[in-house]
Amino acid sequence: MNIIKINENNTIDNVINNLLQRTPNYYDDYANQVQTIINNVKDNKDEAIISYTEKFDKVKLTKDTLKVTPSEIKEAYELVDDELLRIVRRAKDNIESFHQKQKKYSWFDSTTNGTLLGQKISAISWAGVYVPGGKAVYPSSVLMNVIPAIVAGVEHIIMTTPPDKEGKINPLTLVVANECGITDIYKVGGAQAIAALAYGTETIPKVDKIVGPGNIYVALAKKAVYGHVNIDSIAGPSEILIIADETANPTYIAADLLSQAEHDELASSILVTDSEDMAHKVLEEVKRLTGELSRKEILEKSLKNYGYIIVVNSLEEAVDVSNEIAPEHLEVVTKDPFMLMTKIKNAGAIFLGEYSPEPLGDYMAGPNHVLPTNGTAKFFSPLGVDDFIKKSSIISYSKEALGELQEDIIKFADSEQLTAHAKSIKVRFEND
Amino acid sequence: MNIIKINENNTIDNVINNLLQRTPNYYDDYANQVQTIINNVKDNKDEAIISYTEKFDKVKLTKDTLKVTPSEIKEAYELVDDELLRIVRRAKDNIESFHQKQKKYSWFDSTTNGTLLGQKISAISWAGVYVPGGKAVYPSSVLMNVIPAIVAGVEHIIMTTPPDKEGKINPLTLVVANECGITDIYKVGGAQAIAALAYGTETIPKVDKIVGPGNIYVALAKKAVYGHVNIDSIAGPSEILIIADETANPTYIAADLLSQAEHDELASSILVTDSEDMAHKVLEEVKRLTGELSRKEILEKSLKNYGYIIVVNSLEEAVDVSNEIAPEHLEVVTKDPFMLMTKIKNAGAIFLGEYSPEPLGDYMAGPNHVLPTNGTAKFFSPLGVDDFIKKSSIISYSKEALGELQEDIIKFADSEQLTAHAKSIKVRFEND
Repeated sequence: MNIIKINENNTIDNVINNLLQRTPNYYDDYANQVQTIINNVKDNKDEAIISYTEKFDKVKLTKDTLKVTPSEIKEAYELVDDELLRIVRRAKDNIESFHQKQKKYSWFDSTTNGTLLGQKISAISWAGVYVPGGKAVYPSSVLMNVIPAIVAGVEHIIMTTPPDKEGKINPLTLVVANECGITDIYKVGGAQAIAALAYGTETIPKVDKIVGPGNIYVALAKKAVYGHVNIDSIAGPSEILIIADETANPTYIAADLLSQAEHDELASSILVTDSEDMAHKVLEEVKRLTGELSRKEILEKSLKNYGYIIVVNSLEEAVDVSNEIAPEHLEVVTKDPFMLMTKIKNAGAIFLGEYSPEPLGDYMAGPNHVLPTNGTAKFFSPLGVDDFIKKSSIISYSKEALGELQEDIIKFADSEQLTAHAKSIKVRFEND
Repeated sequence: MNIIKINENNTIDNVINNLLQRTPNYYDDYANQVQTIINNVKDNKDEAIISYTEKFDKVKLTKDTLKVTPSEIKEAYELVDDELLRIVRRAKDNIESFHQKQKKYSWFDSTTNGTLLGQKISAISWAGVYVPGGKAVYPSSVLMNVIPAIVAGVEHIIMTTPPDKEGKINPLTLVVANECGITDIYKVGGAQAIAALAYGTETIPKVDKIVGPGNIYVALAKKAVYGHVNIDSIAGPSEILIIADETANPTYIAADLLSQAEHDELASSILVTDSEDMAHKVLEEVKRLTGELSRKEILEKSLKNYGYIIVVNSLEEAVDVSNEIAPEHLEVVTKDPFMLMTKIKNAGAIFLGEYSPEPLGDYMAGPNHVLPTNGTAKFFSPLGVDDFIKKSSIISYSKEALGELQEDIIKFADSEQLTAHAKSIKVRFEND
């Protein structure tokens, strides 16, 4: 982790270019491999799924064992700590409560000469949630992906997650899914799972939208099927940016930077401060705290490659840097964080003040922790209820109201050489 | 156009499979070509743009002539019919008025122990609008793509559109853009335009989101850059589905089917009716009206390949068929269209009653005519203000509020083996 001073000769362009190297868009080499898997699943369905699961997950399933059974879910409950289950339920309540506030209503507006225009909101019918397997299990991620779909009113929510070598799914994943009412869970991971959700197999239903994090194969598969189905977004490596002034507590800042860095070697932790003194204090604290933590190797690699302490001349400049980087997580730890927040354009989640550390948002606060990564907060949003609904425009006109527009529509259509469009209006008035 | 009766032995699966053949997802052959263009523009910027424009548009531009000049815009006004300009302005007012109603506000909710959670709405900063060139000019499409961005508050809106062999842009396109306040217009089309918008060149700025229709190269280029920037959606061929009962006017229905069919040979026009008598009457009227229209060849091809009259047993069954096809445009021309609308799940725009023909929505009503095509209304929405904003979660906790959750967050983090996450909470309370 190095201290960089921003001045006339030194911009953040290098920082941004370095961060962007992490994006899946630079991993095109895997794309062909992924396309082969998708085509195979499209053509050979369950057979392809079973064969890839044997190849990649080292377990031979059958059509009858692809789906998690009720008794597997029951067994899982016996393996999960009661206290953890209580916390999961509390988190679930908080997440549901926040997402309820995101619900939108259908609306219309009308005029007395007989025009009615509106927007109908309806939930998508089928959602597929991908849950990564492997050693690290993230029950919080299951909650965050599933709950917006439930709140939106999605009728069918199914889940896929890779099995271990014994063909089992992590019990905590099963319990959390079941707590959310999800029981259609299929033992399949990787690009083959995304292909199954996008095209359907004999066992796994086709869905309308696929959400959930995954490795590079999963990310590329999601991009490949985008358009045939919808997806949440292309998840890249995670990052935090903290804007702090001299009033911040350097220990808190250091701890929060480290909490991001521990995710993986590509994670990025960035402090932007107008106080050189703060910059040095935080650097000291990062060194000290690293010694107290597990995952030391990941921490050191991620901080070395993607950790930055950027010293700027003013908090305005800090905001500019932050807007340019468009971080997934942004902490604002300054004297007046709310006023500074008004100037923030691009960030997935904004944590204000010194008692709003990023892990609060990961687990318990309620807002979604599935956030736009790696600069995509310039145009993507946190996962939410909006991701599981779609809109239909509503248009209803009286004869009188259409009559008022008829000549203009006909002339407009004629200007675009679309005579059948014009005709559709004319036939409604030609016998008057 | 053939009449198909839906019964136990005859489902709409064949219809749907035939329609889906039209999707760009089946045109992977072009993908490599498109990727080559994108890579070249990424590397060689303006130079690549100029060379592709020479190759594809047959005109040699320079860095100095890539951008439309104020005097070109001034000249364009002299070439546009005054009456048409008046209609464009009226359409613009209606479209703006509808899209104003789509605006969302930032919100927050707070509790007295010091929690504040919310959602901040901000406009994306840079939007790029692609406008197709060629003989057919669609001023309405310019309005529909640009106005939601303006209403959302996008600061920088730029436009690209291919030049003709003289290096000129259609005057109507320039006038309509200027009416919307868009003056940053670049003479470039095809995949190279999309690449320029996604990566930027010396002359053309990089944007955050690309919208606008285009041919297969444009569609594939948009898909390829998706994730690096955002895009509206992958536009496919257009379609209309009309649900009509015996009360409908067969001439109106026929005219509306034809207005869709004239778009291009891949357009699809579908009538679903519970009245066999209506089916035959509409078929007669389609034949009769075709004789009165231009674009006869397109009409005949599109109706032959993708035109259907589907006879069902009940209006409920008609709704099921429509929900399965998820049409871009849906007209409901029945005795009680509003009650039937409540059962519609998937449609881009829903036109209710016999004086709400689809061309009304194309031009003048106000709702956007950029709609999800080819079944994607199951998960995509009409273009709108939402497409040009993004959300940031806001999280602010007091020490007291964080204190109430501290143990749960620590335990949750530990269960995910994320000890630095736990540490970020612990440091805030360890000296208490």
